Amino acid sequence: MSVINEQKNCQWRIARRPTGNVVNEDFSYHEEEIPVIRNNELLLKTLYLNLAPVMRMYMSGESIAGEKGLDIGEIIHGRGVAEVIESNNSAYKPGDIIQGQIGWQTFKKTKVTEKERFRKMNDCGLPFSLGLSTLGMTGLSAYFGLLACGKPKKNETIVVSGAAGGVGSTVIQIAKLMGCRVIGLAGNQAKCNLIKELGCDEVINYKTEDVRQALDDICKDGIDVYFDNVGGDILSACLDNLAQDSRIVLCGSISEYLYHKPYGLNNYTKLRKTNSCMQGFFIYNHSDQFDEAEKELSTWLKEKKIKPVEHIYNGFENMPDALSNIYDGGNFGVALCRIRYGPNDNNQSIGRS
Amino acid sequence: MSVINEQKNCQWRIARRPTGNVVNEDFSYHEEEIPVIRNNELLLKTLYLNLAPVMRMYMSGESIAGEKGLDIGEIIHGRGVAEVIESNNSAYKPGDIIQGQIGWQTFKKTKVTEKERFRKMNDCGLPFSLGLSTLGMTGLSAYFGLLACGKPKKNETIVVSGAAGGVGSTVIQIAKLMGCRVIGLAGNQAKCNLIKELGCDEVINYKTEDVRQALDDICKDGIDVYFDNVGGDILSACLDNLAQDSRIVLCGSISEYLYHKPYGLNNYTKLRKTNSCMQGFFIYNHSDQFDEAEKELSTWLKEKKIKPVEHIYNGFENMPDALSNIYDGGNFGVALCRIRYGPNDNNQSIGRS
Repeated sequence: MSVINEQKNCQWRIARRPTGNVVNEDFSYHEEEIPVIRNNELLLKTLYLNLAPVMRMYMSGESIAGEKGLDIGEIIHGRGVAEVIESNNSAYKPGDIIQGQIGWQTFKKTKVTEKERFRKMNDCGLPFSLGLSTLGMTGLSAYFGLLACGKPKKNETIVVSGAAGGVGSTVIQIAKLMGCRVIGLAGNQAKCNLIKELGCDEVINYKTEDVRQALDDICKDGIDVYFDNVGGDILSACLDNLAQDSRIVLCGSISEYLYHKPYGLNNYTKLRKTNSCMQGFFIYNHSDQFDEAEKELSTWLKEKKIKPVEHIYNGFENMPDALSNIYDGGNFGVALCRIRYGPNDNNQSIGRS
Repeated sequence: MSVINEQKNCQWRIARRPTGNVVNEDFSYHEEEIPVIRNNELLLKTLYLNLAPVMRMYMSGESIAGEKGLDIGEIIHGRGVAEVIESNNSAYKPGDIIQGQIGWQTFKKTKVTEKERFRKMNDCGLPFSLGLSTLGMTGLSAYFGLLACGKPKKNETIVVSGAAGGVGSTVIQIAKLMGCRVIGLAGNQAKCNLIKELGCDEVINYKTEDVRQALDDICKDGIDVYFDNVGGDILSACLDNLAQDSRIVLCGSISEYLYHKPYGLNNYTKLRKTNSCMQGFFIYNHSDQFDEAEKELSTWLKEKKIKPVEHIYNGFENMPDALSNIYDGGNFGVALCRIRYGPNDNNQSIGRS
């Protein structure tokens, strides 16, 4: 049974800037009154909150892709899935499930504006948590990052780093659906087993193997698409093994988040030598196609052509520990937290079909 | 009057690998018999030879974009403009002017194959030397690198490094034709004056100014297209000043050619933060559109909308010194060498119109 106070809006705020990995002292716990809504506003009750590497960058005060860094004392940024429990906006009714920027709190009052980027989930009879994994920004990032930005062709060789993560695990499965040869990189044996099971033709344990050498051995004709979730020396090793006309999708750089001194990419000129492209990927450029993509992803889920990989923590009270854990390589797939749990937990499906 | 022996095929070959800039001892001079042509072959008489930064890389044994590095004793690679003086191939007749891979020699026997990449110059009444500048790979690189790869839009801010070079000086002029705001970087006052005259709205002397600060001051709304001819810290400074959705065209990295330790690009993640793209540019991907582009470039030349910037050295005997000179920043525009010179020099125009 969850220990949060249901009569209050419980919040985690930033107490100080992290140095290295986050620790409990970087966070402070608050309880406020549940907000009262006015004209056009909604009251949301948080069901799931995402845990993502980028959160540490916001906590460090860095702005990323238009999202401002956090000031000390602010509620930690974070996407979530929530239920509308009161609505003064005719486009939403109580019981609707939405995903969007909620922050680390158990209730949220909001006007639904473009800026806040709320999406109503389609009523498709699949679990709510998918709003943070395959049917949320994670799945959409994999979908558009790979298909629109990486442009894989049948039989091409695709390398995916962070392959056991939320985006990576989805990229693997979509790349296999497209008929590609897929090489996944992950950091321990359990993750390597998982990605093999998800369809990887070859796996590389980057903690125990020489990645540059392994890629050289495995990718005799070079890498056609490198889907980069980590940056740093793995990106560099891939640059050294590019095929002609290849595409690097820069989706994440988790290896960069913990370092004070950024990685010096000393072989970027390989892009010129191979006529290749390194593209920074920003999911909101594709927002006009989100519904279409969600539809295709739900179909694949229902037909069991792809499956979600979720690592679910329980309890709002455990959010700081859970975030710390994801930098230690201890989780699979999308990390998320089920805010309320126990026997009466009904966070089970999107739609009631 | 040129001092070369007209009865021989004079050649410059690689004697040893350069360390740092090239010096005379890296080259050896040879004279061979003028070759005799057989079935399908042509005999070419060299009129102009190009001098390009990339030559040092070939001499160091590096392969670039499919072009193999040189073995000790080989003729130095290099593009040139030549006159067909004998032909056993019905597609060519004596008097035709071609541009292509000739190498540092005064005659060449060849079969004209795709691999050798010879282009017959259109008969347009413009000077022969243009086959190595505006109407050769230099001009075509500027044309396709900027238009196809950089995709500039009217009023966008374009930054060009190596702006006083062959490619850069053409990029400036095409970008102005497209209605862009153009910022050029060059390494001395004379070059800065030249690029201002070619149309740059702002110029930065990268040897005397703080480039990062200057870009920050000049590009308040960020850089939309960075046309990179130099790599290294100027590329890094541009990454720090990108607008959203910007494009970096990696056309050359002259700053990298002289260093043993390549530059560590430690802010490549800015591509992700700005949803931008860094594209290695390979001119031969556009070879099916060369004729069309040459036509447009000749029209612009004749209408004086653009002008060639050529730095012409005289005499085949001076090739090694001329190559060394281009790394010292001592030349403007395209560096090329007029092989035979003196009162009877007739290397004046493409076509005899």
